[in-house]
Amino acid sequence: MTNLEKYTRLVEEAVANFSLPQDPNNLYDPLRYFMTLGGKRMRPILTLMATEAFGAQAQEGIQAALAVELFHNFSLIHDDIMDNAPLRRAQATVHEKWNSNIAILSGDVLLVKAYQCLASYEPSTLKALFEVFNQTAIEVCEGQQMDMDFEQRSNVSEAEYIEMIRLKTSVLLGCALQMGAIIGGANAQSSAHIYQFGVQLGLAFQIQDDLLDLFGESAAVGKQIGGDVLANKKTLLSIAANSLANERQKVELVKLNEIQDPELKVKFAQDLYTQIGAKAYCQNQMETFHSSALQALDELQNISSKTPFLELAAFLLHRNH
Amino acid sequence: MTNLEKYTRLVEEAVANFSLPQDPNNLYDPLRYFMTLGGKRMRPILTLMATEAFGAQAQEGIQAALAVELFHNFSLIHDDIMDNAPLRRAQATVHEKWNSNIAILSGDVLLVKAYQCLASYEPSTLKALFEVFNQTAIEVCEGQQMDMDFEQRSNVSEAEYIEMIRLKTSVLLGCALQMGAIIGGANAQSSAHIYQFGVQLGLAFQIQDDLLDLFGESAAVGKQIGGDVLANKKTLLSIAANSLANERQKVELVKLNEIQDPELKVKFAQDLYTQIGAKAYCQNQMETFHSSALQALDELQNISSKTPFLELAAFLLHRNH
Repeated sequence: MTNLEKYTRLVEEAVANFSLPQDPNNLYDPLRYFMTLGGKRMRPILTLMATEAFGAQAQEGIQAALAVELFHNFSLIHDDIMDNAPLRRAQATVHEKWNSNIAILSGDVLLVKAYQCLASYEPSTLKALFEVFNQTAIEVCEGQQMDMDFEQRSNVSEAEYIEMIRLKTSVLLGCALQMGAIIGGANAQSSAHIYQFGVQLGLAFQIQDDLLDLFGESAAVGKQIGGDVLANKKTLLSIAANSLANERQKVELVKLNEIQDPELKVKFAQDLYTQIGAKAYCQNQMETFHSSALQALDELQNISSKTPFLELAAFLLHRNH
Repeated sequence: MTNLEKYTRLVEEAVANFSLPQDPNNLYDPLRYFMTLGGKRMRPILTLMATEAFGAQAQEGIQAALAVELFHNFSLIHDDIMDNAPLRRAQATVHEKWNSNIAILSGDVLLVKAYQCLASYEPSTLKALFEVFNQTAIEVCEGQQMDMDFEQRSNVSEAEYIEMIRLKTSVLLGCALQMGAIIGGANAQSSAHIYQFGVQLGLAFQIQDDLLDLFGESAAVGKQIGGDVLANKKTLLSIAANSLANERQKVELVKLNEIQDPELKVKFAQDLYTQIGAKAYCQNQMETFHSSALQALDELQNISSKTPFLELAAFLLHRNH
């Protein structure tokens, strides 16, 4: 069994053992449903990985790992309402299966349950975990608000977009790792490095997501190729294309917006973004964040083995879906 | 300056000094707006009162008091969405003034900010505060879910209704007091007594609210008399009326439901509920909870003065609005 398999098994066990009261069932049934929809459990795995790398037993990190996973699921339940999304992991979202009010309230209680997981740590560990968790939770909300604001704007810069994805998705990876490091007894400097590793890896991962949405293999992606283009969603690809296009290409970008046929539109976007150099630009940006992640890892001292982190980075960034 | 005025001033100062980032302004403007709508600040005052009664400086309780007030406001922002309420404290609700998505997300971040207030306490105090706060937050969500569930049901019993208001509103009063007691260094037994004082007082207060809604003085209530009856809302009054009515009165209760004219309907309800004995029954239940509150206070040892608590109970339960 690889380390990754071991951590995955521990996390799946913890999620399966996470028990909720029966009543009020309209509050807790949606959570029982949502928590079994699965997902990669990437964040809690990061926590266990860091817990062990910094010298504690993986088991000691399990409540913090669960806190991170519950928080992530809380944010998905609420984001799905805001995005009016019918599906999550190919199943009905909570607000679709029940209703918006139930999705709001069951999300709320899940956030509190996430906090409650931290209560099992002894006071000084709890305080340290609590601080990074609070800060991260606030940033994730800020990132989601920026994402919603961007939908109403035409002039989002690359820097703004990177800041948005840093807050909305990357800081939680950093937090997941840092919480493990705290439990493992890491000093402040090591905590900061492992946090940075997570944030930079998260940025690389998100840019790869943008790329795979348009250039991934349809069967492997498991969803429609070009979903972002069809929804006119802002991604690093579209932002880079707007900024790198020459005059002729700008005319083509306007044309892209006007294409109605989905298949044609996606094909046109693939060709145009490649020709403009936006695809290559994003690949380059992804590599830059990947390198920053590895550099943060390089600066880490007092750690038993960096191999699991390197394996994880390779695993995350060499996928085709 | 009375104690109550002193605590009120401290709380108002803390709320005024509670600062939020400028950006994203769609996330934080709604909170700046909502926090200035006022309210009685009853919960944070309870925290300061208990902090001082158990031997610490009121100032030491201020962050816990703020946590309770922010939590209360978070729950109001989300409840207003769920209840589709246009007004709160005679001003537009957040989801009306902005939109539901912004109300969901700014509520979320306010809940995290409430937790963040607790981070200023030293580790062992934080852990104790954290546990009662988590438990209470979960119960408040459960109470709100029960309240929503009751709207769809015709057969809500008195016991179920009391349990709903205990969770939805009373436990937060108990929590506010217990947090102050913890900061003041109270032992477990005293903490439990002051918590019970708050919960029982909260139940008495809520039943009084139900009574005043129908039998209060219109100008003093500051809102339409009989709002609950007009909205066909379940209250202890309506539940008691259904359970105490004789056959003839049951026919009258059906008639009450069918009256369209608001003024007539309210007058009819006042007379019928009085005649059935539901008004007297509720007054009696209110007094019973009030007595239980005073009894819990009676059992408290090691406290400098019970006067502020007695004054508060008298103040809360001898209002006409």
